[in-house]
Amino acid sequence: MSQYMDKDSVVLLDFWPSVYGMRVKIALEEKGVSYECRQEDFQDKSSMLLEMNPVYKMIPVLVHNGKPICESLNIVEYIDEAWNHKPSLLPLDPYKRSQAKFWGDYIDKHVYSIRRKLWKGKVEEQEEGKKKFIEGLKTLEDELGDKPYFGGDEFGYVDVALIPFTSWFYTYEIYGKLSIEKECPKLVAWAKRCMEKESVAKSLPHPHKIYGFAMQYKQKHRLE
Amino acid sequence: MSQYMDKDSVVLLDFWPSVYGMRVKIALEEKGVSYECRQEDFQDKSSMLLEMNPVYKMIPVLVHNGKPICESLNIVEYIDEAWNHKPSLLPLDPYKRSQAKFWGDYIDKHVYSIRRKLWKGKVEEQEEGKKKFIEGLKTLEDELGDKPYFGGDEFGYVDVALIPFTSWFYTYEIYGKLSIEKECPKLVAWAKRCMEKESVAKSLPHPHKIYGFAMQYKQKHRLE
Repeated sequence: MSQYMDKDSVVLLDFWPSVYGMRVKIALEEKGVSYECRQEDFQDKSSMLLEMNPVYKMIPVLVHNGKPICESLNIVEYIDEAWNHKPSLLPLDPYKRSQAKFWGDYIDKHVYSIRRKLWKGKVEEQEEGKKKFIEGLKTLEDELGDKPYFGGDEFGYVDVALIPFTSWFYTYEIYGKLSIEKECPKLVAWAKRCMEKESVAKSLPHPHKIYGFAMQYKQKHRLE
Repeated sequence: MSQYMDKDSVVLLDFWPSVYGMRVKIALEEKGVSYECRQEDFQDKSSMLLEMNPVYKMIPVLVHNGKPICESLNIVEYIDEAWNHKPSLLPLDPYKRSQAKFWGDYIDKHVYSIRRKLWKGKVEEQEEGKKKFIEGLKTLEDELGDKPYFGGDEFGYVDVALIPFTSWFYTYEIYGKLSIEKECPKLVAWAKRCMEKESVAKSLPHPHKIYGFAMQYKQKHRLE
């Protein structure tokens, strides 16, 4: 590890099943940054979380040398700029950067919000959620095309933004009664390719562990 | 105008009352970029809009030398990076950049979505919208503090993101039966300061013109 890293204090306030937290972990791993990961309890949020993210009081928060950065894609961009000794996650060309950021934002608007309906929603919400979720993934699959990664030949920003959701695919498939591989085979092949990267493999929980969490969550909150 | 500008073809697909379109116009003016502004008709979208923004089919779209950039804050960031001969709208320091982008995103999540309830919503929605709208503005006013601009001494990214909404304040005040100046005097003083800038004054329609648009819109769509 470089001396540069040793100087820095990097703390991630996290909740392990969070796809947003996973993004930050992958970006830190890609940049080779050592960090301390602290798990938050949403029923009893830490004073550090309340202080570091007073606006949303939500994870993930990256605390770098005492200063907080909030919102997962914003954190990924920050990591990319603050630790710029390694290849960039975002392209350097302004046009390509804008396209990558467009797709990152698309994932937040059209995958994240919809997938909640898929596993937490009522039956009719689930059906609607399933249709829109698959539509969103197909749009992303079209954008991927025949490239190995969204970033082209190299794993990059859009890959970081999307890959955490694949740790939830098993759960979505069970609750949504669907096969994502059948609907989006290229996207599932891409996910397997990403999982060969250490940064991803280290940061994503096992799909069965996520499913166990989802089951417990639904029981606890008495969801159907 | 520099030769550099002359080489470029810059077209903005816009709809004049859109706060999102205004952001792009201000950023282009700040950078001294000449551009052609084309008004879109939502009942009859141009083939250019459908081709340039196939995902959302929405304005604003900036078409730079034939290549489209979508989503207003993404466009502002692109303009900042593509025309980097003028002072940057975003700070250059990664931490300060992350804070500015956090607030830009906050405006989209907590001002834009809520303000629609304020002028278009039903009575009970309006009351809820009014409360949340003022809360959002007060949070922003706290962030502004005693600085002349959100960017500090210089007009910057967060100022560009927020100032277009002030052209709608007159409309919100009438439909929402509230005084924004009474609730957020520092924010209104900031808006007046921003209006002294040519880039802003040129890009914002007169508040009465916006109100006329809102009235017609409500009549046409038979809203209360």
